[in-house]
Amino acid sequence: MEQMRAELGQDTEPRRERAGRMARREKRAHGPSGLHRPYIVRNIPTYDILSEENLVRIEATADRILEEIGIQFRGDPPVLDYWRRAGAKVEDELVKFPKGLLRQILKTAPAEFVQHARNPANSVVIGGKNVVFSPAYGSPFVMDLDRGRRYGTIDDFENFVKLAQSSPWMHHSGGTVCEPVDVPVNKRHLDMVYAHIRYSDRAFLGSVTAESRAEDSIDMTRIVFGEEFVDRNCVIMGNVNVNSPLVWDATMTTALRAYARANQAAVIVPFILGGAMGPVTNAGAIAQSLAETMAGCALTQLERPGAPVIFGNFLSSMSLRSGSPTFGTPEPAIGSMVVGQLARRLNLPLRCSGNFTTSKLPDAHAMNEGTVSMLAAVHCGANFVLHSAGFLDGLLSMSYEKFVLDDDFCGSLHTYLDGVKVDDNELALDAFQEVGPGGHFFGCQHTLKNYETAFWDSAVADNEPFEKWEAAGSVDAATRANKRWKKTLAEYEAPPIDPGIDEALRDFIARKKAAMDDAWY
Amino acid sequence: MEQMRAELGQDTEPRRERAGRMARREKRAHGPSGLHRPYIVRNIPTYDILSEENLVRIEATADRILEEIGIQFRGDPPVLDYWRRAGAKVEDELVKFPKGLLRQILKTAPAEFVQHARNPANSVVIGGKNVVFSPAYGSPFVMDLDRGRRYGTIDDFENFVKLAQSSPWMHHSGGTVCEPVDVPVNKRHLDMVYAHIRYSDRAFLGSVTAESRAEDSIDMTRIVFGEEFVDRNCVIMGNVNVNSPLVWDATMTTALRAYARANQAAVIVPFILGGAMGPVTNAGAIAQSLAETMAGCALTQLERPGAPVIFGNFLSSMSLRSGSPTFGTPEPAIGSMVVGQLARRLNLPLRCSGNFTTSKLPDAHAMNEGTVSMLAAVHCGANFVLHSAGFLDGLLSMSYEKFVLDDDFCGSLHTYLDGVKVDDNELALDAFQEVGPGGHFFGCQHTLKNYETAFWDSAVADNEPFEKWEAAGSVDAATRANKRWKKTLAEYEAPPIDPGIDEALRDFIARKKAAMDDAWY
Repeated sequence: MEQMRAELGQDTEPRRERAGRMARREKRAHGPSGLHRPYIVRNIPTYDILSEENLVRIEATADRILEEIGIQFRGDPPVLDYWRRAGAKVEDELVKFPKGLLRQILKTAPAEFVQHARNPANSVVIGGKNVVFSPAYGSPFVMDLDRGRRYGTIDDFENFVKLAQSSPWMHHSGGTVCEPVDVPVNKRHLDMVYAHIRYSDRAFLGSVTAESRAEDSIDMTRIVFGEEFVDRNCVIMGNVNVNSPLVWDATMTTALRAYARANQAAVIVPFILGGAMGPVTNAGAIAQSLAETMAGCALTQLERPGAPVIFGNFLSSMSLRSGSPTFGTPEPAIGSMVVGQLARRLNLPLRCSGNFTTSKLPDAHAMNEGTVSMLAAVHCGANFVLHSAGFLDGLLSMSYEKFVLDDDFCGSLHTYLDGVKVDDNELALDAFQEVGPGGHFFGCQHTLKNYETAFWDSAVADNEPFEKWEAAGSVDAATRANKRWKKTLAEYEAPPIDPGIDEALRDFIARKKAAMDDAWY
Repeated sequence: MEQMRAELGQDTEPRRERAGRMARREKRAHGPSGLHRPYIVRNIPTYDILSEENLVRIEATADRILEEIGIQFRGDPPVLDYWRRAGAKVEDELVKFPKGLLRQILKTAPAEFVQHARNPANSVVIGGKNVVFSPAYGSPFVMDLDRGRRYGTIDDFENFVKLAQSSPWMHHSGGTVCEPVDVPVNKRHLDMVYAHIRYSDRAFLGSVTAESRAEDSIDMTRIVFGEEFVDRNCVIMGNVNVNSPLVWDATMTTALRAYARANQAAVIVPFILGGAMGPVTNAGAIAQSLAETMAGCALTQLERPGAPVIFGNFLSSMSLRSGSPTFGTPEPAIGSMVVGQLARRLNLPLRCSGNFTTSKLPDAHAMNEGTVSMLAAVHCGANFVLHSAGFLDGLLSMSYEKFVLDDDFCGSLHTYLDGVKVDDNELALDAFQEVGPGGHFFGCQHTLKNYETAFWDSAVADNEPFEKWEAAGSVDAATRANKRWKKTLAEYEAPPIDPGIDEALRDFIARKKAAMDDAWY
């Protein structure tokens, strides 16, 4: 990993190692470059909550699910051939896996890989001790305080790409940051991938809604990075979902295989809503998740051994009164910690959890659930945190204000993941000698030496005394966030791009669009 | 500990072990008894983030602070005699501690103890794997959405005692839940202790603002429990603060000694605002905290060996722009995890962190910071979480709505701390066998058997679909909380009390009040 970082020529040192606070504040005013680390290298351990004995029991249950019940692979015959040749038992479309088979196949998957960004300073290392924050993904709706909830458009999509690009705390541009429903379904992916390339210079995700759209997404990266580079390096990822319980459909497996075939990373994610797509008990849902994800990850290795792949996870709970999914609740949070332990035992990079809530407003409810859920992601050791910022409304809406609040929280998590450093300066014995009992540390030498890098400084919290806050209009956090996203968009400047590449991309898109009639489903 | 619980005759089993959800919901409608556990027995490990080597370095720094710089004990001569006799070096009021002295003295302090409540079913075990949630403490102001911020009164005080008593999730009635500023300063403690005894039947904290007030508080418990019982058992605690840095003043040491002398528990808490009362660097603030707290805890053992004592902690950060304290920030959260490790190495019960924020409203800002801070408390292994519910405004205001939101979060932490259980029922292999690939778990046998106890069910979250939420008036979480505390107070019923005891308490208060002129400072 050290080597990867050295090769990338990046600075991922904790902020306190870098330029002083004042310098950083000045840089913040001039854009994100001063504060931005390309990704976090965690300095605190993962939170491992389950005993070896219980982990083994969950793994044994996953093995029995795989061997005795099996997984259906629907409508993609080459997949069945792969499994047959690998030694699985294939009955019609049902595949049953002898114990140990998937673990054996997974040995070729890398524990860590680089996803290259078009700006090399923003390339991310995924796996190991690294943590990458990416915006939320997949909402059909967008929300803001001025206009309420409405369907997302390509303008909204570009706005969220611009907000992420402007943030010092997002490491990734994301994928379907909202559904641009004003663009025909069969052409949407072209505009989305273009927006990520044009309005951001960070790494991103491509389309998975059809094999051809996955291939178009990858083809566009070939224009940016060159064919040979793309064949040798990960430059785009695709987030593919299991059709839980225990079904992989052809849309997902053909997309998964398109990414793997091109040596690009698939993120393999079951969406298990306990009580619907999985059991209501946590240990069972985790065992299912392990079985489904191992099968998907292994399939990438059958398509192309050594292709990068991410072990993904999405546990959710349910309101058993209404049947509604619930998010940010304790069961998925605590379950994520266990999934993290299981992924590390497979030596695979982990995607887990994110900032989830059912709240329809950027209110107290939203940030309580979101914070529980997001802290679970960093505690469980997630390497790629999709859905780090923006979700409200049970994942159905991308909120401008929530994006700002979540993004600020992602900033504080940079400090959190730096942990407690212990050295002579941090231990500050000289300060105690100078100040003594009953003294004050504000003006002491140690404080003067360290205050520029001390303490996380939120951009949206209001820490002023009550009277000052009241005199300034008693503004709440959501209103401050509303002001902030508008300012950020007003000040946004697109990163430079080679005009030839831009033209080639536009040409590619124009040709693809001209070759298809609009389809709206 | 098992023995303590058996002696108490209590049920602290996780909720999923108990009666079904529907039964519990019905009980909830009839009061808290159905859901209430007297305290939590955690089923997940603590989050230990620092290496042995670095813990030893922090301990060595604390030892050097104690030996080379020392701690001042002001205005309480018997304390200096204690230290002299114990082997410390006393120069005027400055006490310097040979290495190892405090650790030796602390060996008599119990690792775990019972605080008895007047209702034995509500007695709490403090220490070990046990977690006790207590309301916030010490705000001069109260807030609600209807009337904004104002000084607290005895009516407010009683309201918060009633709200805690009505909650299934608070285990303790707290202490100065707000300052009743309409009662003279020198008589306030009498009304506060009476309110805890009369309007709650849970354990509580007494006064520490003067030795006589501490003694009055303890005397009132003697009326309730009997003199002999009080001498042999903890029935009240006092929360005493170090005058950081490195000063203990007579108000606090005389109160501390009054509690210890009566065999009642002192909670020893430095309040270290980094950059003011301690260094701006986390490791140094933690070392200081360790030194100050060890000295206070050891003093209780010199006063009465074997007296119960809690190792307390209160780290805080600062906005270096305004000099305002900041709360719910990453540095104190991560620092708490280290303090927890240090307290366990001393084998002492831990008080740490709580639900802190600088927000002046029960908004997104409040619950982000509060959740970070509160999760740190449960992750670090805090046994007694003072400030679990109510704080806004940088600890200056007790908010009715925030109390409801925090209390609900404390409920979810019951489920969180139960962790992931692993047994045949939880692993649910039978459910997979019944449902199979592509099926639905909603109606399966395993779901029917388990759904009543599955999933945390928040009382203030709105998990309904957007359309239903909108049709019901687009209500935010703070407004729902506002409705809820009013309903709880309207439905509140005081727990029964022996009329003779009540009369004796009233008589004691009347005599004490008659013997003093009102004092307002």
